[in-house]
Amino acid sequence: MCSVIRRVKPVQLAQAVTLRLRGNTEGSADNRRFRPGISAGIVPLLATSRSYCSRMALTEGLLFRQLFELETSTYTYLLADTETKEAILIDPVLETIDRDLKLIHELGLNLKVAVNTHCHADHITSTGLMKKRLVGLRSAISKFSGASADIHLSEGDKITFGRHYLTVRETPGHTDGCVALVSGDQSMAFTGDALLIRGCGRTDFQQGCPEKLYESIHQKIFTLPDQCLVYPAHDYLGQTASTVGEERKFNPRLTKSLEEFVKIMNNLNLPKPKKIDTSVPANLVCGVHEV
Amino acid sequence: MCSVIRRVKPVQLAQAVTLRLRGNTEGSADNRRFRPGISAGIVPLLATSRSYCSRMALTEGLLFRQLFELETSTYTYLLADTETKEAILIDPVLETIDRDLKLIHELGLNLKVAVNTHCHADHITSTGLMKKRLVGLRSAISKFSGASADIHLSEGDKITFGRHYLTVRETPGHTDGCVALVSGDQSMAFTGDALLIRGCGRTDFQQGCPEKLYESIHQKIFTLPDQCLVYPAHDYLGQTASTVGEERKFNPRLTKSLEEFVKIMNNLNLPKPKKIDTSVPANLVCGVHEV
Repeated sequence: MCSVIRRVKPVQLAQAVTLRLRGNTEGSADNRRFRPGISAGIVPLLATSRSYCSRMALTEGLLFRQLFELETSTYTYLLADTETKEAILIDPVLETIDRDLKLIHELGLNLKVAVNTHCHADHITSTGLMKKRLVGLRSAISKFSGASADIHLSEGDKITFGRHYLTVRETPGHTDGCVALVSGDQSMAFTGDALLIRGCGRTDFQQGCPEKLYESIHQKIFTLPDQCLVYPAHDYLGQTASTVGEERKFNPRLTKSLEEFVKIMNNLNLPKPKKIDTSVPANLVCGVHEV
Repeated sequence: MCSVIRRVKPVQLAQAVTLRLRGNTEGSADNRRFRPGISAGIVPLLATSRSYCSRMALTEGLLFRQLFELETSTYTYLLADTETKEAILIDPVLETIDRDLKLIHELGLNLKVAVNTHCHADHITSTGLMKKRLVGLRSAISKFSGASADIHLSEGDKITFGRHYLTVRETPGHTDGCVALVSGDQSMAFTGDALLIRGCGRTDFQQGCPEKLYESIHQKIFTLPDQCLVYPAHDYLGQTASTVGEERKFNPRLTKSLEEFVKIMNNLNLPKPKKIDTSVPANLVCGVHEV
């Protein structure tokens, strides 16, 4: 087992089930939707609701950068310990490898692990090529992804970098090998393609399963604190972050019942991802660059 | 004078001049550029350099959201006091007004001021239309912008929202009416089109002047603490934030001498902005929506 990975006990699910049931009774986001042009004044939608606000994470000594790949609207995240300079990179994209490596070098970071939240269908990971450029870098992905990597992640694993770590929460549903990565203080969750901002990953290819995805999000993500920042793998509307509290309250799909959610997901009728036939085979071997 | 604006003494410039001179002796970013593919190991570029790291802002009780408009690569920033819910919005774009208003309403915020960092040439502001949707909202822009607004900003003005405020620093050069907005604890600077990440605003239209821009950035932005996060009005490479320390060290234009900078800026040969002929006249009147 890799030294940066430490296994801990699985996430407890009892609270998750309770929250899932509560979620079902909170109604649909559609009922509360703000209709621009109708309301002229500022009327907070739920005066008695808790504060669904994003604060910036208060983790001392944590370097954090959110990076965006424009063609596939993919977010890459760089996290590092500001003292030890140990760093990890989440979901790096082949097309932006030079930008990402330049930043890592300018900041003087020692990149230990490049993690993919799942085997992507829309872009090719830069993990394989990055390993050729950075001696000692290791790749990581879920053991259920079917992909080769130096580290196969399981529920509860910790990915450490200096004094910080991310904990792995398995979130199957978009694919079997999806994981969310949660910071040690639970102030940030990197949710991959499971939970997006006011949306979620599709479930109509690879091992997609709406029932699994619904359960994963409610049990593994919605059980985090309300103020935990949500950083997804994609956004198509220019949104960069949300919070668990906001998504529990306003996500138009996840505030529905399981039955309604499954119906929505089975009727999205989305086009096949343009790059799926090249991306998935490449990502099964870290981007076809000699893992 | 508007109640949310408080005038304070102008920013002291003595330190700025010192730093500018130092900057000139630090050499060009190009000399230190990482060349992907050449270096196989991780070699921090300057082992003895200070830590040019971004931490997330540590301001307690501050809600912060960065939003992106994809067509013109414009960043809009939403800041609020998590207790009082008073909020301000920086550089909102007409095309994303519904997204922004929906978020403001979902979060239960009371938007007090919509600020433009300058009179934009590449997109139309949503400030005017937003004022029609939100009773009590006021628009703000530099008094040197030539644009109409409820509040005309000057050097040292404070824009308050709850317990927080931003201080105005005039940064002419891209246009005469450019301002940077700096958080009270100097942990965040919204630099408009003056300083971009590893770049800067162009100086070949409106009242563009490379000499002024160089002086503005060195005197008004590079005098902030190294760890102050830089949030620009645009980014075209998927970068979301930088720091003052990083830009002082790695910005390929601003690390040059004034003479070299002027030469670079006068030889960019960029195409005329597509929307300038409609955007500038519209932005002079808050987006042509009955200010």
